[in-house]
Amino acid sequence: MNPLSARPRYISELPARRAQPARPYPIAEKCNVAILGFGTVGRSVAKLLSDNSADPLRVTHIYNRHVARKRVSWLPPAVHWTEDIDEVLSTDVDVVVELVGGLKAEPWVRRALECGKSVVTANKQLIAHCGPELLELARRMGQHLAFGASVAGGIPVVSGLQEGLSGDRLYKVYGILNGTCNYILSQVESAGVSFAEALAKAQEFGFAESDPIEDVDGYDARAKLAILTWVGLHTNVATGEIVCRSIREVEAVDFNYASQLGCTIRQVSRAELRENCLFAAVQPALVPLASPLAGVQGSQNLVMATGELGGETVFSGHGAGGNPTAVAVVSDLLAIARDRHCVRSAHTKAPKRPPQVSGDFVTPHYVRFTVKDRPGIIASLAAVFSEQQINIDSVLQQQGYPKSRLPFVITLEACSGSVLQKALDQIRKMDFLVQAPVSLPILNQGSGNVPAM
Amino acid sequence: MNPLSARPRYISELPARRAQPARPYPIAEKCNVAILGFGTVGRSVAKLLSDNSADPLRVTHIYNRHVARKRVSWLPPAVHWTEDIDEVLSTDVDVVVELVGGLKAEPWVRRALECGKSVVTANKQLIAHCGPELLELARRMGQHLAFGASVAGGIPVVSGLQEGLSGDRLYKVYGILNGTCNYILSQVESAGVSFAEALAKAQEFGFAESDPIEDVDGYDARAKLAILTWVGLHTNVATGEIVCRSIREVEAVDFNYASQLGCTIRQVSRAELRENCLFAAVQPALVPLASPLAGVQGSQNLVMATGELGGETVFSGHGAGGNPTAVAVVSDLLAIARDRHCVRSAHTKAPKRPPQVSGDFVTPHYVRFTVKDRPGIIASLAAVFSEQQINIDSVLQQQGYPKSRLPFVITLEACSGSVLQKALDQIRKMDFLVQAPVSLPILNQGSGNVPAM
Repeated sequence: MNPLSARPRYISELPARRAQPARPYPIAEKCNVAILGFGTVGRSVAKLLSDNSADPLRVTHIYNRHVARKRVSWLPPAVHWTEDIDEVLSTDVDVVVELVGGLKAEPWVRRALECGKSVVTANKQLIAHCGPELLELARRMGQHLAFGASVAGGIPVVSGLQEGLSGDRLYKVYGILNGTCNYILSQVESAGVSFAEALAKAQEFGFAESDPIEDVDGYDARAKLAILTWVGLHTNVATGEIVCRSIREVEAVDFNYASQLGCTIRQVSRAELRENCLFAAVQPALVPLASPLAGVQGSQNLVMATGELGGETVFSGHGAGGNPTAVAVVSDLLAIARDRHCVRSAHTKAPKRPPQVSGDFVTPHYVRFTVKDRPGIIASLAAVFSEQQINIDSVLQQQGYPKSRLPFVITLEACSGSVLQKALDQIRKMDFLVQAPVSLPILNQGSGNVPAM
Repeated sequence: MNPLSARPRYISELPARRAQPARPYPIAEKCNVAILGFGTVGRSVAKLLSDNSADPLRVTHIYNRHVARKRVSWLPPAVHWTEDIDEVLSTDVDVVVELVGGLKAEPWVRRALECGKSVVTANKQLIAHCGPELLELARRMGQHLAFGASVAGGIPVVSGLQEGLSGDRLYKVYGILNGTCNYILSQVESAGVSFAEALAKAQEFGFAESDPIEDVDGYDARAKLAILTWVGLHTNVATGEIVCRSIREVEAVDFNYASQLGCTIRQVSRAELRENCLFAAVQPALVPLASPLAGVQGSQNLVMATGELGGETVFSGHGAGGNPTAVAVVSDLLAIARDRHCVRSAHTKAPKRPPQVSGDFVTPHYVRFTVKDRPGIIASLAAVFSEQQINIDSVLQQQGYPKSRLPFVITLEACSGSVLQKALDQIRKMDFLVQAPVSLPILNQGSGNVPAM
């Protein structure tokens, strides 16, 4: 008899060396939730949790300044309303949902973790600023820190990069991370209005804050980009290191010229790892109409992650608003309720510091000049570009603009932004210009541009 | 003194009732992996794991029929190559990666779980057929069952629906789930070739099997749709209950007419919950060019999930191929390695059986007739539609086709597929037809169509 054929063939005969005995489900014990900050998102979260009584999640505390004016009748009377943070932290709350926002929330999050509570937060500034450190603290305390709502609201991109694509080696993350900018640019494009008019409309509809600096000048998006760089590229970058440019310069005429080039204009946040240098920037850019970035409408968000093996994966949806953000918060809460007693091992890669951070991508560029027309302008500009070894790709001039304030466009072959700036510094002094030139990178479709090394 | 102000203010003073002591990370112990099936995906998985020696994951066993011809030199000599499944199940393997495919793998997966091993699988037929039951078995055994690779390859949509959007109440999942069909339809559209020519090209490039029935007739996509219906809509549906229609009838002329209607044609898989009825179908359909479904190129995949709160979330990327599928497998492996000692509680919603399953969506329809032209055809058709209470929306007839074989299109206002079939059953008998009419639903942009109740 062949000894091989004598091997056990049936499960009952197999030595179950690592087999664990069947065990019943753990009882679905309640998980007590405190909500810090009862604004739009906080109310949506409370509503979602109170609508589903089968869930293990139960709101027990709500903290807000002047909490009396926040009280609602649709939450159970047992909910404790307070303006004293210590009252929350000293109780048997299991998870603290931080929706206060801003760096001022840092001490509360830290204390909540130190008190042995898990934390769910939608706070992009906080996570961009000290996410890795807080996650480390959470691990030391055997707690969870979840922040899916901090980037792109309802789109599950943080977990998508952290978990769903963890098997890949991601090297590039591009995104449209600020719905306000996307709404404003869409308005300038479709209605041909000015930036100021589009902003006013966005403010009227509640898409933009009365102080729009955070949004339109790119600070909001760069905090989100720093988080995506951390969770997707396992790279630590301070928000201040990410080059940021406003969308204020973009005018309706730029969309006309962009359209002639088969492109539209979007505020694009991008981070890319190349040979130990992290290239990162938030700025308006021309994107080809066939790119997923171009298809993002109104206040939607989109994230495109590229890996060595899986290629490009795109996530898109509603990036803001009470309900989508609440979905992200509650999804995080459900995961914590499920994994509460789970001590995670330290397999998650610790983020690295890149030796170098740069915003100096090498791309083709679009430059709009607005001039008082006269002969010799192209020759003067061409001489400057030539001196900087920048090749002109095309010169575009549409009909119907006055000679005294004529906008025309020069597209340039790939060059680094810094070299282009040198050329533009010289050009800015030229007397035929009636306003400063507007330069925008032109992104390749799909695959990104080669950063300057 | 106000007693309230006497409350402790500093963390050291707070009673840390639920605080847990700081504890060191658990040692990152190795996690032994067996790969069942060493084809394209199996090799990619093994390569990915062997490239990253810092990972806790270590390939220890490879099972394949006639395993000798599968051996590779780039795996460590300690790897055990075998054609005996019991040899795998009786060892200290922690996770079994099942890449054999098909329902024949079911007993092995079941036995692996019963032996106390976690399982990662890319097997859509298996998971569509008995996913909930296997997950239940895994839970009973304190093991994990992960199947992110079973739908849409590298796109993390299973975890996205299961976890990232778990806070929402999803009611609709639409997708382009079969890259082969999408490639063939793209070819018919862009190159104007016939279905047979496009299929031959897909086979030549390895995008289609020599037996293409699974792909082109929709069986592959409907298994994936059944899985998405389970994890996204928490609803159990047998694959056999999902209406399936082939893309074979679609011709280049249909793309011409679709384009005139602002649409293209895609194989769309859709599932939608309405008042306890699950509507589900896989079929070619007209989709508006502005819909994310229309933008899916070549062999890519896309999934669009709609929730009551978060609205539409879109996931897209590479749906197949060795590397993208391996990324999904390895991402699942990393999650299991991290959460190995984690007994999950039963908070995950158990899937429900819908009282009713139907493929009878109410949508506008496109119907192409190919006729021997003569007067009175439209009148005859209109009479039949009118009898069934179906309203004609438009009649389209493009130039340049022979009178003896003239294709023209009638678009119909929203009606259920079953009522349309009654009309077409009558029409099929009419002697002016030179081939059977081709009917396709026309999907609304974004928001889906109202199913028939």
